[in-house]
Amino acid sequence: MKSMDALVSLCKRRGFLFQSSEIYGGVQGLWDYGPLGVELKRNLKDAWWQDMISGHNELATPAGAPSPFEMVGLDCTILMHPQVWKCSGHYDLFHDYMVDCRESKKRYRHDQVRGRFVEYKDQKIFVTTLAEIEQEIDEIRRRSLKFFKLRPKNADDITIGDESITLDKVDSHDDVLGPDAKTLGTLTEPREFNLMFKTTLGALGGEDDTTFLRPETAQGIFVNFKNVLDSSRVRVPFGIGQVGKSFRNEITPRNFTFRSREFEQMEIEFFCHPDQSQDWYRYWRDRRMAWYTEMGLSGESLIMREHEQSELAHYSVGTADIEYAFPFLPEGEYGELEGIAHRGDFDLRSHMEGKLDPATNPMTVQLGEDGKPKYRGSGKDLTYRDDISNEKFTPHVIEPSAGADRAALAFLCEAYTEDEAPDEKGNLQTRTVMKLHPRLAPIKAAVFPLVKKDGMPEIAQEIYAGLKQHFNVFYDAKGAVGRRYRRQDEAGTPYCITVDGDSLTDKTVTIRDRDSLEQTRIKIDDVVDVIRSRILQ
Amino acid sequence: MKSMDALVSLCKRRGFLFQSSEIYGGVQGLWDYGPLGVELKRNLKDAWWQDMISGHNELATPAGAPSPFEMVGLDCTILMHPQVWKCSGHYDLFHDYMVDCRESKKRYRHDQVRGRFVEYKDQKIFVTTLAEIEQEIDEIRRRSLKFFKLRPKNADDITIGDESITLDKVDSHDDVLGPDAKTLGTLTEPREFNLMFKTTLGALGGEDDTTFLRPETAQGIFVNFKNVLDSSRVRVPFGIGQVGKSFRNEITPRNFTFRSREFEQMEIEFFCHPDQSQDWYRYWRDRRMAWYTEMGLSGESLIMREHEQSELAHYSVGTADIEYAFPFLPEGEYGELEGIAHRGDFDLRSHMEGKLDPATNPMTVQLGEDGKPKYRGSGKDLTYRDDISNEKFTPHVIEPSAGADRAALAFLCEAYTEDEAPDEKGNLQTRTVMKLHPRLAPIKAAVFPLVKKDGMPEIAQEIYAGLKQHFNVFYDAKGAVGRRYRRQDEAGTPYCITVDGDSLTDKTVTIRDRDSLEQTRIKIDDVVDVIRSRILQ
Repeated sequence: MKSMDALVSLCKRRGFLFQSSEIYGGVQGLWDYGPLGVELKRNLKDAWWQDMISGHNELATPAGAPSPFEMVGLDCTILMHPQVWKCSGHYDLFHDYMVDCRESKKRYRHDQVRGRFVEYKDQKIFVTTLAEIEQEIDEIRRRSLKFFKLRPKNADDITIGDESITLDKVDSHDDVLGPDAKTLGTLTEPREFNLMFKTTLGALGGEDDTTFLRPETAQGIFVNFKNVLDSSRVRVPFGIGQVGKSFRNEITPRNFTFRSREFEQMEIEFFCHPDQSQDWYRYWRDRRMAWYTEMGLSGESLIMREHEQSELAHYSVGTADIEYAFPFLPEGEYGELEGIAHRGDFDLRSHMEGKLDPATNPMTVQLGEDGKPKYRGSGKDLTYRDDISNEKFTPHVIEPSAGADRAALAFLCEAYTEDEAPDEKGNLQTRTVMKLHPRLAPIKAAVFPLVKKDGMPEIAQEIYAGLKQHFNVFYDAKGAVGRRYRRQDEAGTPYCITVDGDSLTDKTVTIRDRDSLEQTRIKIDDVVDVIRSRILQ
Repeated sequence: MKSMDALVSLCKRRGFLFQSSEIYGGVQGLWDYGPLGVELKRNLKDAWWQDMISGHNELATPAGAPSPFEMVGLDCTILMHPQVWKCSGHYDLFHDYMVDCRESKKRYRHDQVRGRFVEYKDQKIFVTTLAEIEQEIDEIRRRSLKFFKLRPKNADDITIGDESITLDKVDSHDDVLGPDAKTLGTLTEPREFNLMFKTTLGALGGEDDTTFLRPETAQGIFVNFKNVLDSSRVRVPFGIGQVGKSFRNEITPRNFTFRSREFEQMEIEFFCHPDQSQDWYRYWRDRRMAWYTEMGLSGESLIMREHEQSELAHYSVGTADIEYAFPFLPEGEYGELEGIAHRGDFDLRSHMEGKLDPATNPMTVQLGEDGKPKYRGSGKDLTYRDDISNEKFTPHVIEPSAGADRAALAFLCEAYTEDEAPDEKGNLQTRTVMKLHPRLAPIKAAVFPLVKKDGMPEIAQEIYAGLKQHFNVFYDAKGAVGRRYRRQDEAGTPYCITVDGDSLTDKTVTIRDRDSLEQTRIKIDDVVDVIRSRILQ
């Protein structure tokens, strides 16, 4: 079991992550990326962009795909027209329930306080009635939220890990104990709380000017669907990818950067013919899973979880989550890295026709009391006409939606390793090493002169200058080489290049591999090519 | 004179820029980057990051610099602790004045309605008293804002372009005509309007939870100064760079993407010893100017404007603007691309000690009515101790602050060219070409099979697949080659590679240069290297 505390401490100490506004006491759920963190996250986002968008070969049929397809990028604003969120459903449905405590004067997320505390295996845990749990699960399923600690097994049991315990029944609201309360029954009835951050556009401040920080990048893609069709020559099937910040006003952010109020997404909306949508769903699900494996997440910690039919949003014919066994979760539990959802034509139709009723037929526009649609869509034609078959249809959408911060956190967790490596004298010493994939590593290589004399620094500086034109590299001449290795191990630098006495005569250096500790001699002239090929291999 | 309308039209038609939420009627001052635009902006930000941060050689002394120096990156959140904005001065001082019109019920920026409309050369323009103009200029200087249409020439004249007209004096507020009003005197007295977008963190919604979308990325760097010092081994002088979105609730956004409500900044805060700060200021001013020239802005359209002493913020000993002659501005006027400011120790001291009084001595903490500091700073020690000289000091800051969207717009304006090129039959035809620097061009190369037979598509596809691993390239087999060239010219693609009959036998292709129209034959095996070296040259 990896220690989350040790990782969090390393992240701060080495400049991967800082709490936002820390000198003012910090803000819950907001995190800044330091000098190493920003390079890691840039590499991660660039790898995604290269692999999914700019490096995509539109002429070839990838393994598992029904046909070749095109991919283009987009970069939309965080602030958008408020109608976008009414038609997308977020204005009405994107909320948590919260309750107030009359005793503690604090506010809580309802799903975290419903029920009451009991002692179980020396842990204080919440239990609720089964009816309430089931209702809650339905709600969570409907809203596609994922984290729920108490799972019902049979009528009276809940399971935690492999253990099942009998429910302590709560029949009345008065039996509920608030998290910080000493007496029962101090909590108010739950109220809805929309998770979108609200703000006002312009100086007028009227109701029409109220808008929201986007809670997902996806809607920017849907409302630009026609613009992309009209301005590029893409044909269905094709995908639009976007990387950008999103915001959710979590009542209780937690687990380091995992549940943050400001986070970055890497989303694809893939548009295809309805008849082929199942195939494309399977293709994207498998391709995205393979991507995380290629970037270094191990098979044991990574799982694909297909949602059961009852868990699916009404419009979806399939959703899969790629989940990772984060060290802060109880054993056997996984946290979502990416969801791949078959969204049918729900989104495009919503923006054409207005908000559809999610409870009933997705083809039916939700009507207000006056018999007219509750929210009017754009009225624009967002259908597609195939110029060869001449068929006109509303494309179905497959949405692989990844969290860049969660991915970064998973890669950091996976990379964190304590092992043993020989010191200068050959004695094994514990070392902390971040085994990040070379594409993700913030620093690709470090260059050391063995000693600060005999012309070694000059050669090392020349190698450093040459590498700097291509990669983020580091120069270090301070202290024993063993200590310099350890510093780079902690930073996740995959290659260390040392200039020694032989370098002056035979124009070679040693290159040391972070993971295998193997050292090989290579020609100074080959250093750039060797680093490039090792990173890309 | 380049036509702004033609450029705006091309940007939409070819997918550089779309209005945000266009299907819902759009939102003023918000713009989305389409498939070509997102690649352009990514290239621009990556070039800045590579040239300023990750590619910086900390061992060499660049021409004009007092010494070698280090550069690191950072990526902070958009939402921060509200105290950040109180101590930075934005909470009290970052505002425009606005007035309401009792007749039209609209709200206006005060500096745009003060005075009254007169007819001049078939244009309806505002005129005001000279005293008001001067007061306004002072205000604009104080707040370092730049755009002001009416410039006083002598006591009674204002100049528009080369023409001067006599002022129509306004002695009383009752003489002022609102922009949409029919009668005089319908405007209210001006009121302050803070330009920061307000929002609420968490579910409690108390006054303490009110915060703002950052109006600049700079403050995130200042509040992390100590974190960066503690986590990396940087020594003063060093710089911290950041790229990210900022938000300003402009009352009247305008000029395409130039004045937007959501925009992206590329900011450096460079920390140095107070005694060297003048030298570093000059270094960064010149280096940033050179960067725009290297990336393709011509000497005629680009100017450096040093602020006069009276224009400087009280804490600044020097500020220079890099300005560009955008085609939407009157001839002889320039719009700001980047400001390079010597900020002294104002920012670090503000975050240590609380908000300093900008009107008086920057060393004096502003006191509230109770005699205590109005806003308490963090109380953290943000000074620096040099480990060699053992001197302790508050570093001075040089701030090169660039707008990524403004730079992208300037590069688009500069690139837009209408010239003549021969068609298939050798007749000169007008062509529209985007002469973007190869590093900035969204598509680096296009690959064409001359005809769709005789094995040419197979060879072209192989070349395309090889290039795709390194660059964003485009494959086009549709229509006459001349038409394909034109499409790439409009997209700004610097190189077109054509596979023809000879390619089958001698394994060569033609490469056509977008600007010179020169065509040369190169070996197929060399294509990747040729493109790479041309882009970097």
